[in-house]
Amino acid sequence: MHRALPVPVSVDAIAERIGGTVHGNGARRIARLASLESAGADAVSFLSGRRHAQAARDSGAGALIVSAALQAEAPADAVRIIVADPYVGYATLSQWFESLLAPPRAAAAIDPLARVDVAARLGAGVGVGPGATIAAGARIGEGCRIGAGCAIGEGASVGPDSILHPNVVLYPGVRLGARAIVHAGTVIGADGFGFAPSREGFVKIAQLGSVHIGDDVEIGANCAIDRGALDDTEIGDGVKIDNLVQVGHNVRIGAQTVIAGCVGIAGSATIGARCMIGGGVGVSGHIEICDGAIIGGFSLVERSVDEPGFYTGAWPLQSHVQWERTAATLKQLPRLRQRLRGLEARAGEPPKDPE
Amino acid sequence: MHRALPVPVSVDAIAERIGGTVHGNGARRIARLASLESAGADAVSFLSGRRHAQAARDSGAGALIVSAALQAEAPADAVRIIVADPYVGYATLSQWFESLLAPPRAAAAIDPLARVDVAARLGAGVGVGPGATIAAGARIGEGCRIGAGCAIGEGASVGPDSILHPNVVLYPGVRLGARAIVHAGTVIGADGFGFAPSREGFVKIAQLGSVHIGDDVEIGANCAIDRGALDDTEIGDGVKIDNLVQVGHNVRIGAQTVIAGCVGIAGSATIGARCMIGGGVGVSGHIEICDGAIIGGFSLVERSVDEPGFYTGAWPLQSHVQWERTAATLKQLPRLRQRLRGLEARAGEPPKDPE
Amino acid sequence: MHRALPVPVSVDAIAERIGGTVHGNGARRIARLASLESAGADAVSFLSGRRHAQAARDSGAGALIVSAALQAEAPADAVRIIVADPYVGYATLSQWFESLLAPPRAAAAIDPLARVDVAARLGAGVGVGPGATIAAGARIGEGCRIGAGCAIGEGASVGPDSILHPNVVLYPGVRLGARAIVHAGTVIGADGFGFAPSREGFVKIAQLGSVHIGDDVEIGANCAIDRGALDDTEIGDGVKIDNLVQVGHNVRIGAQTVIAGCVGIAGSATIGARCMIGGGVGVSGHIEICDGAIIGGFSLVERSVDEPGFYTGAWPLQSHVQWERTAATLKQLPRLRQRLRGLEARAGEPPKDPE
Repeated sequence: MHRALPVPVSVDAIAERIGGTVHGNGARRIARLASLESAGADAVSFLSGRRHAQAARDSGAGALIVSAALQAEAPADAVRIIVADPYVGYATLSQWFESLLAPPRAAAAIDPLARVDVAARLGAGVGVGPGATIAAGARIGEGCRIGAGCAIGEGASVGPDSILHPNVVLYPGVRLGARAIVHAGTVIGADGFGFAPSREGFVKIAQLGSVHIGDDVEIGANCAIDRGALDDTEIGDGVKIDNLVQVGHNVRIGAQTVIAGCVGIAGSATIGARCMIGGGVGVSGHIEICDGAIIGGFSLVERSVDEPGFYTGAWPLQSHVQWERTAATLKQLPRLRQRLRGLEARAGEPPKDPE
Repeated sequence: MHRALPVPVSVDAIAERIGGTVHGNGARRIARLASLESAGADAVSFLSGRRHAQAARDSGAGALIVSAALQAEAPADAVRIIVADPYVGYATLSQWFESLLAPPRAAAAIDPLARVDVAARLGAGVGVGPGATIAAGARIGEGCRIGAGCAIGEGASVGPDSILHPNVVLYPGVRLGARAIVHAGTVIGADGFGFAPSREGFVKIAQLGSVHIGDDVEIGANCAIDRGALDDTEIGDGVKIDNLVQVGHNVRIGAQTVIAGCVGIAGSATIGARCMIGGGVGVSGHIEICDGAIIGGFSLVERSVDEPGFYTGAWPLQSHVQWERTAATLKQLPRLRQRLRGLEARAGEPPKDPE
Repeated sequence: MHRALPVPVSVDAIAERIGGTVHGNGARRIARLASLESAGADAVSFLSGRRHAQAARDSGAGALIVSAALQAEAPADAVRIIVADPYVGYATLSQWFESLLAPPRAAAAIDPLARVDVAARLGAGVGVGPGATIAAGARIGEGCRIGAGCAIGEGASVGPDSILHPNVVLYPGVRLGARAIVHAGTVIGADGFGFAPSREGFVKIAQLGSVHIGDDVEIGANCAIDRGALDDTEIGDGVKIDNLVQVGHNVRIGAQTVIAGCVGIAGSATIGARCMIGGGVGVSGHIEICDGAIIGGFSLVERSVDEPGFYTGAWPLQSHVQWERTAATLKQLPRLRQRLRGLEARAGEPPKDPE
């Protein structure tokens, strides 16, 4: 299942890459990176926490990345690579293995079927795929790879060493920082959704702002991040956004915030730094979520969140028959509360309702 | 922050554009359109309602678009432009500023890297970007701009003066009205989701209908609007749709309805005219929403809505700990109701439950 | 409304196609396939269940596909085509009519504006649209049609007789089975969403797995199906997925499962075979849904589902004013339960709460 490296590497070499200490035979050859369950003798795996200890003990892995505290959970035959944080060690190693597994890449080039305007500026070593379009005034930093079918609008800019996968669209004037990864089909800088109702129908509000995205940002596939009406939509450094996420106009997202798939953020909402927004969450417009808040999946954030913490709002799954009963009773809830109050009054109890 | 016009304009010129009356020095030069908070002396801003009155009084704007009723809220130094509806005035002005800010556009042309079938008909002044494909029998009205990477299927038609941003796909036979704006990555006319279960697995139901979209419609980025099974999917004049919206097969949407981002509308649902559908809403299949209904964000419309009004259904956000308690109690709700009934009976009260 | 066949067909020919028996004039010419309500004398329609019996009796259809049990509901003038399952009959017929309605297709060819790597392998009769890219090592089975603007990555494979509509992206190494239909804008194989938090910010976890999709799978427009972290994301034979669906990394979906639009499935979730997942559903990560489960639209599946059945969780729509009252009371629910318990204790009743 797991692809084997064309040339195996030693446990010592792995340990050096991830800053670990080897206990056991550092010369052992490793060809794969695998989960505890599927790792064989030619594979390295990792133990990221005590709840996987049993799986670690049962693993057939030839080498195990593990913390000092949990090294006793390694299988007897495995070479141990001791690191402070095995999950970070795994992440670091995965990047190295990816580079070893990748086919040798041709020198970066501009495909003859790409259309690069003479008034666009491209840094050294930029690759542009077939069918891609780079308009006048656009600037692409050195080392960028612009995928097939991407469209980079007038005056848009991409920082160095960024990767735009196929069919990404940057509207005119969008600014993307360094080391960005944008997955296929994502659209950045489309018009925010603004119309003034009038007697003759809606009058479109031209979206004169842009989108400004910091460094080290990753954005998933088929997202839509709108340009601002007057000011810019702003996404901070290190933000990670999953697939199919909508970011409305003039939204601001603080640094290092993580947003899971299918989230919708309405216009002018502000999300702080280091937040975690679960999958399928909705964020209403013009509200603020403070730094460090965690929003559970599928919740609607319909009001501002002023204190860090873990927040949730979602109907728990029920059998459909039970749900029908519960939903019917839910609609009676304010009346049930009144009836309870009535019984309490009858029993001579003091009022207990907040208002 | 806000881009300055290459050549500033006078307050008088702005007033003429938006049908306003100038109070103060109409010769003042204006270079920017800005929010009340960030406007400087070279900027025009607008006051759209009394709740922004304080911000208006504090604004450094050189000119203010304002209604007669609120003109006293303008800062002392600002030239006032009095209009009936400042928000419409702002919208109208934003379009003018956009045109002044845009780089001078090259004459519309068909890029040599576009593939336009000899049996497609293009009106005068149509521009087609690189990588775009226009198939046989397609008709593109005069003045349209077809973005890079768009694919227009056999026999599809686009009304005059429409803009298709990059990578929009119109499947064969789709009809789009005049002055349409379709943002990047949107797909119109893919097969509706229909399969007949059989003993040998699902039999695909070919989707023989199409999609018919009226005039003055705007559709956001990365939407999916499906073709009908037998009849057409129909979207009325002036409808505005935000990003990442799904419109199922045979849905009908009435004129001037506004649909926010991440909405999903299941097959054969009918939405009336002048409705407002909030972000993240779900609409079940085969139901009807009457004209003029407003659906709050993140609600599921699981039944027909027969009267105009404001409807909502979404769990309010709670701290996760409180949510866990509430969710557990929710499942007890039908039983709590029974217990309440029991206490009432014991107290000699008559039955109070609906059924 | 419904397109007429260029050359009408006889009722006998229709019956032969769908395996039915003709009662009446089998020589009657039929030019259209239409719903009961809109069918005229030149149209064939179908009656799929008793609840449409009145519409069938009132229909002007010239021919009706109907079961033996319901044939008495056919309008007097209609020729009856008796089949075991009229809905399957309609589905089968729709495919034939689609082929008759389609313009004669040019021989499959590789457009000169496509970029097909010399190290890609294409089967016989493969068509590749303008702007499409097929990278080195990719394999495209015979009879496939690769739409305009598609991008097929290094080493990806597509089984025979598959259709990729425009602007579909397959990342490197993705494997797609035979007879696949993938609608426009869908992205398969983008990186799963994985980052290890560290003191220096998030460390990207390279996604070394891939995506493996079985035979006879249809995927809607603008979906995003991520590649696995170590193992593959797996989608079984005959799975049908609607538009704008997100499938996270390492998700497994069993054969013949149907997933409606706007569903989000978080990483490492497992969905069984023959499930039906309603529109807008969210599935949490690392949970399991057993074979044959049905999840109602807009529900969050936040826990594993171990038994087949119909499950739902979604707030029922209310007027906004009622919703505000209900939502406020909901937050009091655990306290209301305590108060009820208090009253019961006072009345001398034994404790009734589960815990």
